[in-house]
Amino acid sequence: MLLMIPGPVQLHERIIRAMARQMIGHRTKDFSEILQYCTEVLKKLFGTKHDVFIISASGTAGMEASIACFSKVKRITCIDNGKFGDRLGKIAERYVKEVDVVRFEWGEPIDLERVERSLAEGSDALAFVHNETSTGILNPAKELARLAKEYDALTIMDGITSVGGDYVAMDDWGIDVAIVGSQKCIGAPPGLCAVAVNDRAWDFYNEKCPFYLDLKAYKKKLEDWQTPYTPAVSLFFALEEALKIIEEEGLENRIKRHRELSSFVREWALKAGLELFPKLNEFSSYSNTVTAIKMPEGITDKELRGELKDRYGILISGGQEHLKGKIFRIGTMGNVTMREVVTTLSCLERILVKRNIIRPVLSEI
Amino acid sequence: MLLMIPGPVQLHERIIRAMARQMIGHRTKDFSEILQYCTEVLKKLFGTKHDVFIISASGTAGMEASIACFSKVKRITCIDNGKFGDRLGKIAERYVKEVDVVRFEWGEPIDLERVERSLAEGSDALAFVHNETSTGILNPAKELARLAKEYDALTIMDGITSVGGDYVAMDDWGIDVAIVGSQKCIGAPPGLCAVAVNDRAWDFYNEKCPFYLDLKAYKKKLEDWQTPYTPAVSLFFALEEALKIIEEEGLENRIKRHRELSSFVREWALKAGLELFPKLNEFSSYSNTVTAIKMPEGITDKELRGELKDRYGILISGGQEHLKGKIFRIGTMGNVTMREVVTTLSCLERILVKRNIIRPVLSEI
Repeated sequence: MLLMIPGPVQLHERIIRAMARQMIGHRTKDFSEILQYCTEVLKKLFGTKHDVFIISASGTAGMEASIACFSKVKRITCIDNGKFGDRLGKIAERYVKEVDVVRFEWGEPIDLERVERSLAEGSDALAFVHNETSTGILNPAKELARLAKEYDALTIMDGITSVGGDYVAMDDWGIDVAIVGSQKCIGAPPGLCAVAVNDRAWDFYNEKCPFYLDLKAYKKKLEDWQTPYTPAVSLFFALEEALKIIEEEGLENRIKRHRELSSFVREWALKAGLELFPKLNEFSSYSNTVTAIKMPEGITDKELRGELKDRYGILISGGQEHLKGKIFRIGTMGNVTMREVVTTLSCLERILVKRNIIRPVLSEI
Repeated sequence: MLLMIPGPVQLHERIIRAMARQMIGHRTKDFSEILQYCTEVLKKLFGTKHDVFIISASGTAGMEASIACFSKVKRITCIDNGKFGDRLGKIAERYVKEVDVVRFEWGEPIDLERVERSLAEGSDALAFVHNETSTGILNPAKELARLAKEYDALTIMDGITSVGGDYVAMDDWGIDVAIVGSQKCIGAPPGLCAVAVNDRAWDFYNEKCPFYLDLKAYKKKLEDWQTPYTPAVSLFFALEEALKIIEEEGLENRIKRHRELSSFVREWALKAGLELFPKLNEFSSYSNTVTAIKMPEGITDKELRGELKDRYGILISGGQEHLKGKIFRIGTMGNVTMREVVTTLSCLERILVKRNIIRPVLSEI
């Protein structure tokens, strides 16, 4: 099965092979070297000189660590314009007394004025998703961080599906806490996430965060290049190899490739007369790692994705929650190449052309 | 390096190969089948007909889920006779207002009377470690559960290093919540844990548990054989294979092997004139999965474990926290065989005999 979903991504064969390795002790120099290497490369992907902590758990745990560990705030503004923004709000409810969720229709861009109004009402923290995987929109991280700074608010950014595939400059933008998942743009298997934390965030440290996600324990152990609890060693083997591949490709080239591939998917969709799902404003743009397309008339989600999967062996994603059946999503994350993108669009085109929904356009672009 | 530490354990080559597999979608029938298979086999290892939830995180997260999710209790008694008992207390402090830690010297057996006194003072929950990895003692799970039942207390058992390697009968013993880790007796790599939960535990459900560890979300998703957040798919491949190996061996045979191997280590130690670390009473026994031996005079921890590692390529564990340098620990967990045990003891014996600390006894047993 070719995975073209927005994570977990198809694995490079080097990453698959990296996992096929005998276990090593997690309190050894060998493991410490891997942890150190991964941490240093991740810092570059986040665009930070500050700490990066790798947690053996999936991205949601990273979101929770980011909010829970730095929840000594009076009021937090969470922006919800998709499933993962919604999740930030749900997590915040467990740790912060006053949570103001600034809600937009899923697929709508963020209206900065509404965010500013929420901040002005007394929030000292802002949490948002950079690349909203559920709707294929890239939210304006830089502008949001600038706005948060005006109100001196702690800024938490979910970069789970942007870091490693799109331009992220945590320190330059003034982001205090950011999160990435292993199975997205980084190209490793799922099961690890990383949280980048600057010095200022510790002013908001709340010791009543979950024990397993207590980043203070991670910080202390990182002094000896260790983790506080047993790490998922095999996934670290994979992450190390994935980051080596990134270093070899070069981050600039990697971002360029992600942008080109997603741009190609969008161009195909538009040329075919399909409609991109997200609406944009001047501050937002289409995601460079996942493309969400409205389900055209004349075919159901089950038919489209079912035939793609059963006849052609390609997995793409549908819509989540109330978007189920209304959109389909194609991931262009990780080590995906033009070949896989053309393969996917070519098979999609066959399915849609045979039903007279679109005309063949792939060769025109 | 031969891993003879009490987890992560050496991996069977079938388990290594199982991970070397291309990624699959986590919302597919293929993944659901793996999740279902793993869940069903784990139930047998726990000795339960109730729910088992697999979390993509290490054992400590399972301990936290067990306490946090079922923390609607007035007062919890936590038994600490080792590092992991101590950890249970530390986790409980984050979720339960009144925590009574019944402390014993690490290595001492549990005095049931002291536990009963604590329960009698008004605890409606009891948390304890079955097999205390840090000291090599097997705590009396059955008796503790019986005692808890007398006081109608919720019973939480950390079975991280017993389930899959020693006899555990959660339902028969009256344990409400139990935990296992993937990288111990089950023989898989680290990064997954599982929590078994009976119906009664839900009376104590606290919705203010961590979002990522909220077992209610796991329960809901398990109806469709899914996980609420992206699972560590590659580790599930490994867990599936590890559980197949267990099914092929047969749980009874597996427990017998664990008992024989640990018994062999103890016999060697005693014959050599070394002293086992844990003290026992009538209710406790030596661990069947890890053996803790006092560091003999005439050699330091660094010399003993250093030479074993550097000259012979064998990794065993030292003592943790204040036991550092005072004991060494040999794991006999997972798919370890007599060959590896003899190898380890033989090399240990060479190191100790050459320093005139013991005489060679391995061939006598």
